[in-house]
Amino acid sequence: MLVVMKPEATPEEVRAVCDRIGQLGYRAHPMAGALRTAVGVTGNKDAMERGRLEQLPGVAEVLVVTRPYKLVSRDVKKEDTVIRFPGTDATIGGRDLAIVAGPCSIESREQAFAVAGRLAAAGAQFLRGGAYKPRTSPYAFQGLGEAALIIMAEIREAFGLRIVTEALDNESLELVADYADVIQIGARNMQNYSLLRRAGRSRKPVLLKRGMSATLEELLMAAEYVMSEGNYRVILCERGVRTFADHTRNTLDLSIVPAVRRLSHLPILVDPSHGTGRRDMVLPLARAAVAVGADGLMVEVHAQPDQALSDGAQSVDPEQFLQLMAEISPIAPAVGRRLPHGIHLSEPAVEHA
Amino acid sequence: MLVVMKPEATPEEVRAVCDRIGQLGYRAHPMAGALRTAVGVTGNKDAMERGRLEQLPGVAEVLVVTRPYKLVSRDVKKEDTVIRFPGTDATIGGRDLAIVAGPCSIESREQAFAVAGRLAAAGAQFLRGGAYKPRTSPYAFQGLGEAALIIMAEIREAFGLRIVTEALDNESLELVADYADVIQIGARNMQNYSLLRRAGRSRKPVLLKRGMSATLEELLMAAEYVMSEGNYRVILCERGVRTFADHTRNTLDLSIVPAVRRLSHLPILVDPSHGTGRRDMVLPLARAAVAVGADGLMVEVHAQPDQALSDGAQSVDPEQFLQLMAEISPIAPAVGRRLPHGIHLSEPAVEHA
Amino acid sequence: MLVVMKPEATPEEVRAVCDRIGQLGYRAHPMAGALRTAVGVTGNKDAMERGRLEQLPGVAEVLVVTRPYKLVSRDVKKEDTVIRFPGTDATIGGRDLAIVAGPCSIESREQAFAVAGRLAAAGAQFLRGGAYKPRTSPYAFQGLGEAALIIMAEIREAFGLRIVTEALDNESLELVADYADVIQIGARNMQNYSLLRRAGRSRKPVLLKRGMSATLEELLMAAEYVMSEGNYRVILCERGVRTFADHTRNTLDLSIVPAVRRLSHLPILVDPSHGTGRRDMVLPLARAAVAVGADGLMVEVHAQPDQALSDGAQSVDPEQFLQLMAEISPIAPAVGRRLPHGIHLSEPAVEHA
Amino acid sequence: MLVVMKPEATPEEVRAVCDRIGQLGYRAHPMAGALRTAVGVTGNKDAMERGRLEQLPGVAEVLVVTRPYKLVSRDVKKEDTVIRFPGTDATIGGRDLAIVAGPCSIESREQAFAVAGRLAAAGAQFLRGGAYKPRTSPYAFQGLGEAALIIMAEIREAFGLRIVTEALDNESLELVADYADVIQIGARNMQNYSLLRRAGRSRKPVLLKRGMSATLEELLMAAEYVMSEGNYRVILCERGVRTFADHTRNTLDLSIVPAVRRLSHLPILVDPSHGTGRRDMVLPLARAAVAVGADGLMVEVHAQPDQALSDGAQSVDPEQFLQLMAEISPIAPAVGRRLPHGIHLSEPAVEHA
Repeated sequence: MLVVMKPEATPEEVRAVCDRIGQLGYRAHPMAGALRTAVGVTGNKDAMERGRLEQLPGVAEVLVVTRPYKLVSRDVKKEDTVIRFPGTDATIGGRDLAIVAGPCSIESREQAFAVAGRLAAAGAQFLRGGAYKPRTSPYAFQGLGEAALIIMAEIREAFGLRIVTEALDNESLELVADYADVIQIGARNMQNYSLLRRAGRSRKPVLLKRGMSATLEELLMAAEYVMSEGNYRVILCERGVRTFADHTRNTLDLSIVPAVRRLSHLPILVDPSHGTGRRDMVLPLARAAVAVGADGLMVEVHAQPDQALSDGAQSVDPEQFLQLMAEISPIAPAVGRRLPHGIHLSEPAVEHA
Repeated sequence: MLVVMKPEATPEEVRAVCDRIGQLGYRAHPMAGALRTAVGVTGNKDAMERGRLEQLPGVAEVLVVTRPYKLVSRDVKKEDTVIRFPGTDATIGGRDLAIVAGPCSIESREQAFAVAGRLAAAGAQFLRGGAYKPRTSPYAFQGLGEAALIIMAEIREAFGLRIVTEALDNESLELVADYADVIQIGARNMQNYSLLRRAGRSRKPVLLKRGMSATLEELLMAAEYVMSEGNYRVILCERGVRTFADHTRNTLDLSIVPAVRRLSHLPILVDPSHGTGRRDMVLPLARAAVAVGADGLMVEVHAQPDQALSDGAQSVDPEQFLQLMAEISPIAPAVGRRLPHGIHLSEPAVEHA
Repeated sequence: MLVVMKPEATPEEVRAVCDRIGQLGYRAHPMAGALRTAVGVTGNKDAMERGRLEQLPGVAEVLVVTRPYKLVSRDVKKEDTVIRFPGTDATIGGRDLAIVAGPCSIESREQAFAVAGRLAAAGAQFLRGGAYKPRTSPYAFQGLGEAALIIMAEIREAFGLRIVTEALDNESLELVADYADVIQIGARNMQNYSLLRRAGRSRKPVLLKRGMSATLEELLMAAEYVMSEGNYRVILCERGVRTFADHTRNTLDLSIVPAVRRLSHLPILVDPSHGTGRRDMVLPLARAAVAVGADGLMVEVHAQPDQALSDGAQSVDPEQFLQLMAEISPIAPAVGRRLPHGIHLSEPAVEHA
Repeated sequence: MLVVMKPEATPEEVRAVCDRIGQLGYRAHPMAGALRTAVGVTGNKDAMERGRLEQLPGVAEVLVVTRPYKLVSRDVKKEDTVIRFPGTDATIGGRDLAIVAGPCSIESREQAFAVAGRLAAAGAQFLRGGAYKPRTSPYAFQGLGEAALIIMAEIREAFGLRIVTEALDNESLELVADYADVIQIGARNMQNYSLLRRAGRSRKPVLLKRGMSATLEELLMAAEYVMSEGNYRVILCERGVRTFADHTRNTLDLSIVPAVRRLSHLPILVDPSHGTGRRDMVLPLARAAVAVGADGLMVEVHAQPDQALSDGAQSVDPEQFLQLMAEISPIAPAVGRRLPHGIHLSEPAVEHA
């Protein structure tokens, strides 16, 4: 159910509508648009009486939302969601491409600082780095935990990069929410609904990676879990799906970008590092991701990829990252995007593909 | 690393080996076999000195385990793991087929009792029933929670059925471990490593369902997470994987049964309900699962499938369950298995397929 | 469109209906059932006038067939199609399980005879053997061609086995139709519609293997191509599909057996050799295939699998084939099937799976 | 085996090497490079004596090619293969992007001419159009056959477009080779080795579409079949693969473009029409295909997509095609490519994605 307010409705009227929805035992989700506010209603059973809401002052109309995803849907919010980060120019979902880069894992203060400065200089606005790692083996390196969060917080101070890092469970989510700017939910946890709800009760934006065999609808419903708890700042991320193809670790499904943009107002990034699993494919697929219309990229960069404790095979080095930024720089304006400021080459540097 | 004890080693010698392993900073996992005990060692780095252990009294030899899964592996334990349930004849992994049956969700006391009595009479030893449901939509029925656990505990009292039910997070895991006999970890959480570790610290057996796109190795590694925490009573379950095929909801991959049995000592069940998503396919695939060598079945049964709050399309009714038991009864002995006692028909009742 | 004749309709009346259909510019496909004959009509556009046919003597009713597959469908023919081989007891699709066994490729007269005698003794009614091999590499062994067909014809004489062998193109199809009893169309050619049509104009039965990523509907439509040309003796065969799973070469999709049986009257075999690609999985999956209700098995057997010119890894040896026959012998009656006569063990010989 | 000639080797010396290879019972495949010629040798068994060839005048060295694909490989030919079309500027594989556009099927002279003129004006150099259609149903429109080939030949005369059309079997291949400029082998026939060999004996270039579940190696091996017969002008084409994802008809796997370019000298196009199955996704994925480094695009364009006899849902109209050309025009130079001349808009016209 969606309550569309009149353009001239006052904040008080919006609040009154939300209160009434709450009194009816439902949950109100006010969404401010450029022209007017809409209020999503969740928790209602199929046959909710609209009459009671349509009478309220400031209400233009009450619509039924038939798709299984409600708050995620463009039916509820027409304009693209733009996520802002106070105190910075960085945005995700707006005209600027969001560039999230960094090592798979934070391995040490030295390793992290070594790469972070170069990323910032090249134009990245966000640092990614694992503090809690979901490893296939219980005996593999599991991340430095809070120590890694502290290092990343120092990097934010030093270079102005916003921090994106993964939470694995409720405990790590609390810490991640304290230290980081964006809470990442990994592919393996895309349908960990308990964790999604908990992230939905946090006030930090949530970056939600597509599960290895998640359909479009399942991805959107996972985002709906977060939003249904009141956290509307959700960023989706395509990172490759599992298929029979064996020339890449995963098959990067770029078609989900226009599919998401058609159905949802949420921004979507593309991760060509996990999406291919091969260093030599990160650059061409990063170009393709920008061209297809993604809101940004998530790229693994390590100062010495061959010595990385995890995911070295798919990490590029800082030189290659600089090259990546150079290669996407002429493509971004071709799709109406701006690249963040950096010292990256202004010349397109791709020779004949 | 695996410390193989001599056949004549005393319990004290085993304990001394475990203590020494602990002093070295590693973790000891004693596994009693029919002839002798082996002690798995985890937590060691590649180059652990075996010399120190080989000298200890009662030690026959120290072996390096090169597979990524250790405790799960037949290299560490040759004999099939048989999971017993004190106070009952029920086992999982032994000569008897384990039959786990029940509704997708516990919807009410009446609904649950209506079906449970018929399941017990037909020969099921285990009741499955959802208390906490991982639903794709945050607005769908999420299960009755602890109330459902209480109902199932009553069913155990009334009919002697052991209880299998899913835990979604640490909170529900504590409650499930309190009330139920087997903690189920669902397909969506197969790589929720935090939950796996927590289940590994419980003393209840864990039924681990294969993820929708999990490889054999990933499934075994997920079991390793549980075992690495000291809980060696893990039951695997095939429930279909995601493919392009659209005549079933999932594609049931029965080949994983002999694959698991070759590599691991852990029992493996098959769930033809989720594995096909279609009521009319549950019986033939149940027969196939027994024939392929599964240690048991997990089947959704609802007294009135068309009115089920979840998964009705794949639930059989009690009559069909009785027919299922009749159809597998001549197949079980053909693969060296015994069917649990029940009032099910003794005549094979399948007409020309 | 389907013209259902009255039970008492005479052959002349059926013929008159077919003639009239031909005069209207369509094609008539008479299908004799146990109680009455139905005449399928293909080639008509959507809005064919039924009136003209309903008036004819002996016609009970004229039905519109809305599924995309017509002649394949149970709507057109209720009874299972049973394919008979004159001069033998062998059938495919009836109460007897059809056992097709033999080497991947016919490599020499000696190799073929060495295995054929043992297959016949064990109860196989059909010999499979490649004369024309669709190999991934143009430089790999491509089969002995007509020489192999001659060898197989001699084997038929010597042992009474019916011959099943693959045709790759129109030229080989002519030769295969001359020498063999069943024309096999391989998975790679399942949508080679030109070849399917040509096979449809042959009078020999056609064994059609499911393509590596074919849906159920595509498989049935491929059979429809054959039948639309007037050859109604089509046998389907599941041989595994391509998925992300890597513990087998393909993922054997046994659920397609009940799915086919529900929609179509055509028989369906299962090939656990290609379906798994691993010798140690052929037996358990063969048991499962019988249990799920398949009309028969297609198994690669080589006297010396490790020296096979192709597919050695998935071929069993004659001893293992004998064991296979022993293992399925108690399962066949459990699903209402009879096993062909042979000298195979009468004792179920599977120990605890 | 690969015989690398000295840079100064004369044509006579190359010919002598080829003759000697022929006398040895093998097949010689001379491949002229910018600096020197290499001669691929196929048909030899593993242990071919290189000595005999290394002694010949003009021979620099003889190398063993260990990959399963030989002539396809960059090991054999370093430079990109550029396919030229006499009498035109059109190339495939060079600096110019190759744009292949047109209707799924040639339905009539009017329909074909209506779209062809607009395609030529927009900058396409190649017309695609089906004369022989591989349809899932035997009762669906199967193409106009030779009549369509004649129409396309007229279009070549009228607009200078080169003609690309599919051959289904040996008969249609002869006709296609007579009338068209490029013989297309469709996805369903990618492993129809008989047809591949026949195409390899034609003198026309062959456009080979990736099968629905073909691995990279299988695609390259299919090309090797064509090349092994002496036709070295092969163009690969990615058109989407089959996965669980249901928001598109197929999943377009753009990562295969850099994978092919790394291993092979052959050009590769991308077909975003079949690759997505949705008109609204053709443009974004076309942009991505150019950005990833494809040698060109293959796009379905119909003057009235909603009335197309086949594939209407994925066909764009001429206006959208013009928009597509506009959208890729700024991306092409960013990857070192030139767009063919046309009257298409010079302004990038994509607004904020």
